[in-house]
Amino acid sequence: MSSDRRARGEEALGRIDPDVAGRMREAFAEIAPDFADMIVDFAYGDVISRPGLDPARRQLVTLTALTVLGAGTDLIETHARGALRVGLTRDEVVECVMQCAPFAGFPRAIAAMAALRRAFAE
Amino acid sequence: MSSDRRARGEEALGRIDPDVAGRMREAFAEIAPDFADMIVDFAYGDVISRPGLDPARRQLVTLTALTVLGAGTDLIETHARGALRVGLTRDEVVECVMQCAPFAGFPRAIAAMAALRRAFAE
Amino acid sequence: MSSDRRARGEEALGRIDPDVAGRMREAFAEIAPDFADMIVDFAYGDVISRPGLDPARRQLVTLTALTVLGAGTDLIETHARGALRVGLTRDEVVECVMQCAPFAGFPRAIAAMAALRRAFAE
Amino acid sequence: MSSDRRARGEEALGRIDPDVAGRMREAFAEIAPDFADMIVDFAYGDVISRPGLDPARRQLVTLTALTVLGAGTDLIETHARGALRVGLTRDEVVECVMQCAPFAGFPRAIAAMAALRRAFAE
Amino acid sequence: MSSDRRARGEEALGRIDPDVAGRMREAFAEIAPDFADMIVDFAYGDVISRPGLDPARRQLVTLTALTVLGAGTDLIETHARGALRVGLTRDEVVECVMQCAPFAGFPRAIAAMAALRRAFAE
Amino acid sequence: MSSDRRARGEEALGRIDPDVAGRMREAFAEIAPDFADMIVDFAYGDVISRPGLDPARRQLVTLTALTVLGAGTDLIETHARGALRVGLTRDEVVECVMQCAPFAGFPRAIAAMAALRRAFAE
Repeated sequence: MSSDRRARGEEALGRIDPDVAGRMREAFAEIAPDFADMIVDFAYGDVISRPGLDPARRQLVTLTALTVLGAGTDLIETHARGALRVGLTRDEVVECVMQCAPFAGFPRAIAAMAALRRAFAE
Repeated sequence: MSSDRRARGEEALGRIDPDVAGRMREAFAEIAPDFADMIVDFAYGDVISRPGLDPARRQLVTLTALTVLGAGTDLIETHARGALRVGLTRDEVVECVMQCAPFAGFPRAIAAMAALRRAFAE
Repeated sequence: MSSDRRARGEEALGRIDPDVAGRMREAFAEIAPDFADMIVDFAYGDVISRPGLDPARRQLVTLTALTVLGAGTDLIETHARGALRVGLTRDEVVECVMQCAPFAGFPRAIAAMAALRRAFAE
Repeated sequence: MSSDRRARGEEALGRIDPDVAGRMREAFAEIAPDFADMIVDFAYGDVISRPGLDPARRQLVTLTALTVLGAGTDLIETHARGALRVGLTRDEVVECVMQCAPFAGFPRAIAAMAALRRAFAE
Repeated sequence: MSSDRRARGEEALGRIDPDVAGRMREAFAEIAPDFADMIVDFAYGDVISRPGLDPARRQLVTLTALTVLGAGTDLIETHARGALRVGLTRDEVVECVMQCAPFAGFPRAIAAMAALRRAFAE
Repeated sequence: MSSDRRARGEEALGRIDPDVAGRMREAFAEIAPDFADMIVDFAYGDVISRPGLDPARRQLVTLTALTVLGAGTDLIETHARGALRVGLTRDEVVECVMQCAPFAGFPRAIAAMAALRRAFAE
């Protein structure tokens, strides 16, 4: 049932950032009320809550994907803080971003490293 | 010294695939004899052999980076087999690629999943 | 309920290509049995079957996304044939890919145009 | 003749945003006086003014291309407002961006959705 | 006049590869007869034939763009051979692709280097 | 020896911007003290200081790579100013970015052109 996906998604995303689902719902409430739920239900309820990888490993996958993609700074910051919440150390997060350099080039790694710096400063 | 980077790089890359450094050297011997060494020395000797993440976690970072980037099939195949060599299970490799779908979209995940299928068939 | 998503997804994807869901299930049955369902349920059941855009407009969005992304030839071929099935003309499909050139550059448009040629030849 | 391309391009771009050609000419007047004309003449005069797709469908192609590409926020805002000018509804614009999520991932769709929010707030 | 763009474009593209315009026209004659002309007229007639950079420097820009973009192998091969025709040496072409590695990552550089190998073998 | 790479890298990067290595070391000193050195040693010490292309040609490759990649504005600004330092004219830098439009699309070229404007204004 849909409510299972929602509950699983809320729990998995809540581990990364307890407020992010609410912030997204508020941000898109007026123009796209279903959009935040789609992220919760699919990305977190269907995929990231699957049992095959533990939350720390999944967060390495997320951070790598965001770094290589050249995702926005805010998103990388959110997920860098989430990485610490699921048990990765700062150094592990830094190593993850550093390892993106030989695969996706230094500009992507530099942008993500700047986001880590802001995430760790808070 | 450069020879340390080379040795560290050969060891780290050899864990993924004992033959890949040789194959790359042969492939580029005529046009770019230094290119394969650059990959060994920098990507593996400087970055991936760093102690901060264990080989299995590093290989998740590598597979995610290649999937999101839309790297060539052969490269993804090589690194999927390497993932098994450093101790990841087939299911963990599959979960890693699957998790790229919400971040980088299904076309990239489908392409990588097809490479996994070939890697696992051997 | 999940079965609604599946039914809606099968119907929406079936309009594009009646056989593609089955081909994907077969392709990934051994390594990732849930992966094809994820595409059907989320991409088609949750998103593409929404009422806000008619199937022809949605297929323009799909073809543009695949072209700009540099998706694989087979995927673009499948969706070019699907575009004809949902009522776009060959010329409309060609215009869509051509319009990607000023936004994503000629190499992406050339690659997609070659896929259209193969799709239309069948 | 070149003046035809210019006139066709000015008209097609003017439908999206009556001021954007002028703003671009001003922005690049000092360093690249031909650059804005190149956009008008080629993107709009040669491609987007072609008869094969109506302006609303072309704007769906444009918005999809910008979203998938990860184009700058200002450009997406400009084209979201342009989409309303050529007759698309807010909901259709939102659906277009939402449909990019399964193809290009949520980070690109989130960034574009944030630009839509700003475009619609004005 | 349009015929000037065409003539300038044919000349500039002909310097890279005397046959490529004809091959493209033939390839797309049936589905998109204007598409090859668009490449000749805009990419070569409007942009690459401009006087500000000599043909060898322009071909370095082209090869870098194709490598970073992850363009198709055939296109990179064509432009690698074109680079030799406009006076670059094999080593200069190799250095250009190698320099893309720190900016765009090794997978893109490896793919382009493999295309150079095929280009130089003929 | 590593110190040779460092010295070669500092010299090559210093030609682009005498302060950038220091700024990067300061920026990442707390979270990733080795990261700036990695850029100096590998990107500049191993690759960009190689003799096969002169500094002006190498900077064209760098600017093209950053433009096509959609790198951050600050990075493009830094390298546009660096381009002037290694002997390129403003017009040559502009031509380089303009030529990216047919290969990577106008949005990437527009973003880079805006960075050039800021670089040239200083």
